[in-house]
Amino acid sequence: MRLKLTIAYDGRPYNGWQSQVCGNTVQDFLNRALEEVAKQPLRVQGSGRTDTGVHAHAQTAHFDAPDELSMNPFNWVPALNTKLPATIRVMACEEVAADFHARFSAVGKIYRYDLCTDPVLPPLKAGLAWHLPRSLDPGVLSEALACFVGRHDFHAFAAYRGNETEDSDYIRTIHAADLKPLADGYQIEFHGDGFLYKMVRLLVGAAVKTAQGRYRLDDLTSLLDQPEGLPFGKSPLSAPADGLTLWEVIYR
Amino acid sequence: MRLKLTIAYDGRPYNGWQSQVCGNTVQDFLNRALEEVAKQPLRVQGSGRTDTGVHAHAQTAHFDAPDELSMNPFNWVPALNTKLPATIRVMACEEVAADFHARFSAVGKIYRYDLCTDPVLPPLKAGLAWHLPRSLDPGVLSEALACFVGRHDFHAFAAYRGNETEDSDYIRTIHAADLKPLADGYQIEFHGDGFLYKMVRLLVGAAVKTAQGRYRLDDLTSLLDQPEGLPFGKSPLSAPADGLTLWEVIYR
Repeated sequence: MRLKLTIAYDGRPYNGWQSQVCGNTVQDFLNRALEEVAKQPLRVQGSGRTDTGVHAHAQTAHFDAPDELSMNPFNWVPALNTKLPATIRVMACEEVAADFHARFSAVGKIYRYDLCTDPVLPPLKAGLAWHLPRSLDPGVLSEALACFVGRHDFHAFAAYRGNETEDSDYIRTIHAADLKPLADGYQIEFHGDGFLYKMVRLLVGAAVKTAQGRYRLDDLTSLLDQPEGLPFGKSPLSAPADGLTLWEVIYR
Repeated sequence: MRLKLTIAYDGRPYNGWQSQVCGNTVQDFLNRALEEVAKQPLRVQGSGRTDTGVHAHAQTAHFDAPDELSMNPFNWVPALNTKLPATIRVMACEEVAADFHARFSAVGKIYRYDLCTDPVLPPLKAGLAWHLPRSLDPGVLSEALACFVGRHDFHAFAAYRGNETEDSDYIRTIHAADLKPLADGYQIEFHGDGFLYKMVRLLVGAAVKTAQGRYRLDDLTSLLDQPEGLPFGKSPLSAPADGLTLWEVIYR
């Protein structure tokens, strides 16, 4: 039986999503919890990676539960949570079609990024927001974000991962990039059909630089639709992982 | 020059407020930061202790800055924050009268306590709320809290600290004990002229037990105004430190 997990995590204690030799990743903790419950090696397939320090409100993953376990899907939730640290929680578990794939069946993702503009970053926001106590023009920030909306070549907003090929595809569609005021700053929400490696943090970095008056909107738009990418050193600065949360993975 | 500090902290990494040999307390971190800035030993006096795992939105403390430093009070904020971990922040610093005392000049305190009633405690709430997924009657919870309001002998709601004397005073006045719904649970706010050791957690523990139907309101009120305290084993259960935040210390 193929099962889909919805997982929330605080990214601060972990070396990202993707399994590593160190073992301190969200995927590693989930795999170990599955193995403890099922008493056999089981592996989750996630919707995609999140970097060290990036949080998730609803990451998704699938795995194949052995039929002989005959466990109700909803029983996996407490069974896994008792084996997981409190900063990783399985929020839901449901049966899906045998051809469902957490990564390839996804048709979109929503990311949120929090900015804190208070003079002092409150202790409970440490690692959960980008602290920007200097002046930031929210009107310009909104304008900058609006530039990203649509179907574009985002090569300039992709970090080098090492597995790129000549025909790597950097075309993505951003459906929305909205700015919402918070009590102590702002929240940016991106909704797109998919995101390149570090793309959200590079978009946020460029938009913030513009809102701080260190880029013009023209500089920003000139970074879009650059099929050759950018010369080294021209790439926009990446926003820190702190404020970023994978909010939702969308399936049909 | 006597200075008053307003300090916020995430209680999770620390062994409470009060200085200890281990050195891992909020007061120890503040004393070390002061010493680094002033290049001489300085000590803060807090408004009162908070236990391991208890948070503060606006704890207060005072210290005497040596005159030869001639530092503007507001310059202490960034100077101390660069020496402190991100989970302890000095939010404000102001000059006060020479006879101001963080503890003895306080005329009241506000504490908040968060309950999470969602089936699964979200990872970002781990250590920040008491997880109560089982049914809880908010009407009864409000009624239970209302019983505490007024001037009472709270001997039954004080944990043994070891420095009690025959004439220890257990009379306190609670001005308000309010329940506010949150998206994922409830927040209790106590406003009183002062609180005994572990009193807030014992009040919350008793009120929750009543709201869960495991105490009657009569059982609860019978714990109030017991000048002799209670026989061992009759004391209400303490709520965990997780949900508790020292919200404000009130001065005239």
